Amino acid sequence: MKLSELGEDAVVAQLTRSLRLDRRVELGAGDDCAVVETTGGLQLLKSDCIIEGVHFSPAADPKWIGWKAMCRSISDIAAMGGKPLDALVTLAVCPETEFTWLKRVYLGLQTAAKSYAVNLVGGETAKSPGPIFLSVAMTGMVKDGRYASRSGGQKGDLLYVTGRLGGSIAGRHLRFHPRVAEARWLVQRFPVHAMMDLSDGLASDLPRLARASRVGFEVDLANLPLHRGCSRENGLQDGEDYELLFAVPPTAKRKLEAEWWTTFPKLRLTAIGRLVENGVSQFIGKGYDHFAR
Amino acid sequence: MKLSELGEDAVVAQLTRSLRLDRRVELGAGDDCAVVETTGGLQLLKSDCIIEGVHFSPAADPKWIGWKAMCRSISDIAAMGGKPLDALVTLAVCPETEFTWLKRVYLGLQTAAKSYAVNLVGGETAKSPGPIFLSVAMTGMVKDGRYASRSGGQKGDLLYVTGRLGGSIAGRHLRFHPRVAEARWLVQRFPVHAMMDLSDGLASDLPRLARASRVGFEVDLANLPLHRGCSRENGLQDGEDYELLFAVPPTAKRKLEAEWWTTFPKLRLTAIGRLVENGVSQFIGKGYDHFAR
Repeated sequence: MKLSELGEDAVVAQLTRSLRLDRRVELGAGDDCAVVETTGGLQLLKSDCIIEGVHFSPAADPKWIGWKAMCRSISDIAAMGGKPLDALVTLAVCPETEFTWLKRVYLGLQTAAKSYAVNLVGGETAKSPGPIFLSVAMTGMVKDGRYASRSGGQKGDLLYVTGRLGGSIAGRHLRFHPRVAEARWLVQRFPVHAMMDLSDGLASDLPRLARASRVGFEVDLANLPLHRGCSRENGLQDGEDYELLFAVPPTAKRKLEAEWWTTFPKLRLTAIGRLVENGVSQFIGKGYDHFAR
Repeated sequence: MKLSELGEDAVVAQLTRSLRLDRRVELGAGDDCAVVETTGGLQLLKSDCIIEGVHFSPAADPKWIGWKAMCRSISDIAAMGGKPLDALVTLAVCPETEFTWLKRVYLGLQTAAKSYAVNLVGGETAKSPGPIFLSVAMTGMVKDGRYASRSGGQKGDLLYVTGRLGGSIAGRHLRFHPRVAEARWLVQRFPVHAMMDLSDGLASDLPRLARASRVGFEVDLANLPLHRGCSRENGLQDGEDYELLFAVPPTAKRKLEAEWWTTFPKLRLTAIGRLVENGVSQFIGKGYDHFAR
């Protein structure tokens, strides 16, 4: 059945009926706003979006489209060392869309929300005369005021990345796992000077971290952790790895590497380079620019 | 100059350079997330969107496109009796868009944010191969736990609307003023059983309020406050009035009407009907359905 046959209210009612909500949520989807209990302190806020033909192919499994939309915003909360809490979904679709397709997008959104203990508390549904548009806004919290921005990196810091890089277009760009537990563990136990998630590729994202921190960078190109079959250029430029990139002082190296292996034995951690004096960055190519032709 | 000539980072840097932020904001646009100070208690969350060709014409003044996007979400916070706090903007545009056009959209977003003391703290910018998409996610707070949902209406309650209805397509749909002060005043001084903002027209929105409250409704059709030149059908079905619709017990009538006129002398308040027993609603036509053909 098509959305135009069901009508807006029935579509929204069916999609939001079985949403997982914890006790913090006083009022979920269906009213003008959601109402949630907050504890005070520092809150994280981020919105992101994925668009048909840009971030996913129309032929992709809609469950993984929903998963990706939710996990991109979760990954941004992770990138600060935060815990994701509540999500709002804004969806624009053609009225001729099949309801079964949309239900599977919601299955993906809900599966991701459940995996990361996120409440899907509402949003908006509208018709689009063009490509499908799916935006997720996310709130998160920070423990004891500790979070990692992009701007605290210092000359001499070591640069690490989690996991492996490159080749996400083969499928990982849809099915990745945001590094929430890893990032929280890092900011709570180590002096993480700067951190971000790798969404546009190391060649775009590392210069952003360095620019925000007013330092330069060097990368040990021979040391990049690459996915099987990927070249160094794939690792630098492909994007959508959603791994963590972070900077810690060299004094943290020994303890960090020892404890990482025992805490996250299945996820690789690699020292890939260091922050250096401002103005002397190595050229590592260009990553993804959303507006480039 | 086109966005594709400037590149993503330069576009975002220029757009977010002069954003108004109050002292609650520890970190604004430019990092993975915004970081804001929260006080604890009940938080309101809402996201909304407007799409080129659906919610605005490509020929519209971009300043008012930005104003509308921001004010729709503010209006949802108002509809609960809340105070809007922080906004995230998610924007998808064609890379061939002129930067001057986009700067004017941001002028509208910022003007609205300033008018309602909202912090624009971040979001996301992406390329769209189709129509322009502009989504605003908003947080808000509630004083002393008092807010009005749609679902508390009771049989016998009187129904009121603020302002006048109908004919918004002539321009008010872009340039409206969310009723934040009025709604906060209402929930703090009167037993508002249910409230919402009128976005899809009284004929769509009143049945939603009644359904959420499990009651019916009656409207004094001769009593609808209409904009000049509007018919009763315009008042019921046009949508995008962004006025408040609310239900209070009849015992509140005298004090409410007397104090309203002295507090908001320039804004009309009209008793338009009442909530009745479930199942006996009057038929008042059909309002806007986003998915209807």
